[in-house]
Amino acid sequence: MAEISLHRPYPAGEVRAWDFETEVAVIGFGAAGACAAIEAADAGARVMLFERNSGSGGASGLSGGEIYIGGGGGTDAQRAAGFEDTTEDFTAYLKAAGGPCVDEAKCELYGREALGHYAWLKAQGVPYRGNYLPGKHIEPADDSTLIWSGSEAAAPFCTMAKPAPRGHVIQHMGWGGGRPLVDVLEASARAKGVEVMTDSRALALVQDGERIVGVIVRIDNQPRFVRAAKGVVLATGGFVFNETMRRKYCPDSFRLNDPIGDKDDGAGIELGLGAGGDAVHMEQFFTTCPWTMPESHAYGVFVNTAGQRFINEDCYHGRVSRCAVDQPGGKVYLLLDNAHFVQPMDFARLSIAGTGDSWDEVEAELEMPAGTLSATMAVYNREARLGRDPLFGKREPILVPLDQGPFIALELNFATSYFSFFTLGGLRTSIDGEVLDRGGAPIPGLYAAGRCTSGLPAWGHGYSSGLSLADCTFFGRQAGRRAARG
Amino acid sequence: MAEISLHRPYPAGEVRAWDFETEVAVIGFGAAGACAAIEAADAGARVMLFERNSGSGGASGLSGGEIYIGGGGGTDAQRAAGFEDTTEDFTAYLKAAGGPCVDEAKCELYGREALGHYAWLKAQGVPYRGNYLPGKHIEPADDSTLIWSGSEAAAPFCTMAKPAPRGHVIQHMGWGGGRPLVDVLEASARAKGVEVMTDSRALALVQDGERIVGVIVRIDNQPRFVRAAKGVVLATGGFVFNETMRRKYCPDSFRLNDPIGDKDDGAGIELGLGAGGDAVHMEQFFTTCPWTMPESHAYGVFVNTAGQRFINEDCYHGRVSRCAVDQPGGKVYLLLDNAHFVQPMDFARLSIAGTGDSWDEVEAELEMPAGTLSATMAVYNREARLGRDPLFGKREPILVPLDQGPFIALELNFATSYFSFFTLGGLRTSIDGEVLDRGGAPIPGLYAAGRCTSGLPAWGHGYSSGLSLADCTFFGRQAGRRAARG
Repeated sequence: MAEISLHRPYPAGEVRAWDFETEVAVIGFGAAGACAAIEAADAGARVMLFERNSGSGGASGLSGGEIYIGGGGGTDAQRAAGFEDTTEDFTAYLKAAGGPCVDEAKCELYGREALGHYAWLKAQGVPYRGNYLPGKHIEPADDSTLIWSGSEAAAPFCTMAKPAPRGHVIQHMGWGGGRPLVDVLEASARAKGVEVMTDSRALALVQDGERIVGVIVRIDNQPRFVRAAKGVVLATGGFVFNETMRRKYCPDSFRLNDPIGDKDDGAGIELGLGAGGDAVHMEQFFTTCPWTMPESHAYGVFVNTAGQRFINEDCYHGRVSRCAVDQPGGKVYLLLDNAHFVQPMDFARLSIAGTGDSWDEVEAELEMPAGTLSATMAVYNREARLGRDPLFGKREPILVPLDQGPFIALELNFATSYFSFFTLGGLRTSIDGEVLDRGGAPIPGLYAAGRCTSGLPAWGHGYSSGLSLADCTFFGRQAGRRAARG
Repeated sequence: MAEISLHRPYPAGEVRAWDFETEVAVIGFGAAGACAAIEAADAGARVMLFERNSGSGGASGLSGGEIYIGGGGGTDAQRAAGFEDTTEDFTAYLKAAGGPCVDEAKCELYGREALGHYAWLKAQGVPYRGNYLPGKHIEPADDSTLIWSGSEAAAPFCTMAKPAPRGHVIQHMGWGGGRPLVDVLEASARAKGVEVMTDSRALALVQDGERIVGVIVRIDNQPRFVRAAKGVVLATGGFVFNETMRRKYCPDSFRLNDPIGDKDDGAGIELGLGAGGDAVHMEQFFTTCPWTMPESHAYGVFVNTAGQRFINEDCYHGRVSRCAVDQPGGKVYLLLDNAHFVQPMDFARLSIAGTGDSWDEVEAELEMPAGTLSATMAVYNREARLGRDPLFGKREPILVPLDQGPFIALELNFATSYFSFFTLGGLRTSIDGEVLDRGGAPIPGLYAAGRCTSGLPAWGHGYSSGLSLADCTFFGRQAGRRAARG
């Protein structure tokens, strides 16, 4: 009997009997898997969905439920707030945020179809209040729909595409919209006849010649053989909780200690690679430290341990955080003046590293050489008073001089502060969700979506909230629809 | 008939007739392939070596022929110059230079055995004059043996391991020791009966069950089937000339425009992955711009477009260059004073971006805000006069104040200056050169060495001259010896 392994498909010829027969088998019940299942069922396929845990959710269920949507003149929420968002601007931002060698075809397809995707989400039952919440938020504290969720209005992105807020959040009071979002998608999937098997961990794909024809799942500690006549959709998430994979593919992530997700173990990536797939952008990860809370801290200035600024701080908090983690010295400082300092949130685990009545005093308390941090702040304040930041292009209204002492430096320590992170690399897929081999040809019968693939959020430095869920839900749908075609 | 593809092994059952039969087939005739062939032959195996080009060389032949060697109390050249180099220090440096998640077992093995490897190289006929050439050199301009070729004496490396020069260069007048090095290795291989086939490009591996049993090579435009009873050793180099692979695995390399190597197309990596191998550190690349020539330029100070320093400039030129390429703005400036400026080498394609009688004037000419570059240089000069660099840890004798005007800023532009680069990522192999699958098990009959693998030089920011050839030659030997065991 052949070995059952994540690392290579099991030969169909050695399957003695199929325990389950379906047309499309979806692995993983986060947003990507749910959307794939819904579309496959809508296309007329019989669908079984296998989830390792006892219920739906995945990393999506732990998220804010924010989806990056725009283009086509704008969504209802964008237009109501006066933001006309063209497809060209939206697509240009997706490409800029996706970083070097992003999958441009995916950006272009989603750029054209995001409005239709928004309508589809609503048709599944996802509620949107339709309003715009101004300001700088990680997630809306109320049930608002639309927030700024990226670096659209910040340099250099604002020079590449006309800015608009595009983070669309399910109507839900407070943080944590991901759970109700998945609930709606789960309900839709079940209503369409998707058969959900929980406590069912995928162990191996089953291959017949070139074609993936099924999957082996562990149920009640037994391997069960699932025939999937039309195909298997992998939607198992990233690999942030798989230290072996991170060591091999994402070494820089070891600067940080707070992986987030639903025990994402990279199983789908391993399954896809074992079937001849290709994995790209594997070194990329998202990270953020919630430094913009309280909101007045968004007006702060970041310096590294050499007292140097390194970013326009009006960028998305995750971009700022990711650039921070590139700085030497294991930490950065968030500089605030009396007008903007409020006690930081406990959960961010920031500490007060220095204070003073002048920036010279702060500099000395941080044991930086004279003329470093103080020179940085002299230039910053002088230019900010003129409404400009010639070094990094920070813009008003976030651009304000920090000149009302006393002053304070908060330490964001990569090892001890709360820098949550998850991986962005994964299987290379076509715009239809087909898993591609290294030559670029689809592997028959194998599809994937979400963070076990590389998609719209391909670059940690450009990540914007909602990009991953946009990718999961939209390309999950493509994968499900394509799988149903067989 | 099965398809002949780099991306998947050809089934042995479909081979009608073998055109060649050997025990060990080595693919690629750079230093790694040569050393693999020598050791396999020495172990008693019949060996055929297939090279795509009309002669030996590969990227090794284009290199300086420098091999990173130390430990064990020091080589003859090290000891003669008064450097006692312990295995502990040597190994610690290998690990530090190898960067996050380097293969520690490879560092430890080479750390213990480098002195023996040096003796082996001599036994093959590689001549070493045995002397030490002080100073800062990219390669010796004469026929000296030993130079500083890394960041050993610079922070933070000097705090992790006692520094010693370890770049050992073949006795050869002037630059370009790689060609004579490969010539010696080729002569040794041929003397040991290795059968060399040139103009022979590898097209596919041949697999029988789990085992790699041969290779298909194109000779005279025909596929020829080579049976390799004991195994195949891949030694085909990196993928710097394969833009498709770079786009997928090494996007940041597109900041630069001067790939170096021997048309390294990643074929061995594709062959290994197709056989179930694993590729790691694929995003890593070495780069350098020859900014330390003329040597007085080594005393310069680097700033980015914000007028900020970013590195202790006494590091290895490649580490400085790699960190430069991380800076925003597409370029950095090398600042020099009248005491150190000499017209730069034409081939470096540097330009004079600004001059002045004070650093304020240079700052203004570079259109930087007042108080940026000038403040940087005020701190730098003040501290350098005290013999210290509290920000980046640059050390004497390279640490000198730049205060004798007129002053000059040379522009190193990532797109237009000469930033040569090559890739560092590749197949994951055991310390014996076995190609490992994603689960960490050896793929029977398949071995690899050199830049189609990931080895000692796993981190562009820590690269030191001689690390790649040390890896190629030493782990090439391990792969050849292991392959000969069958």
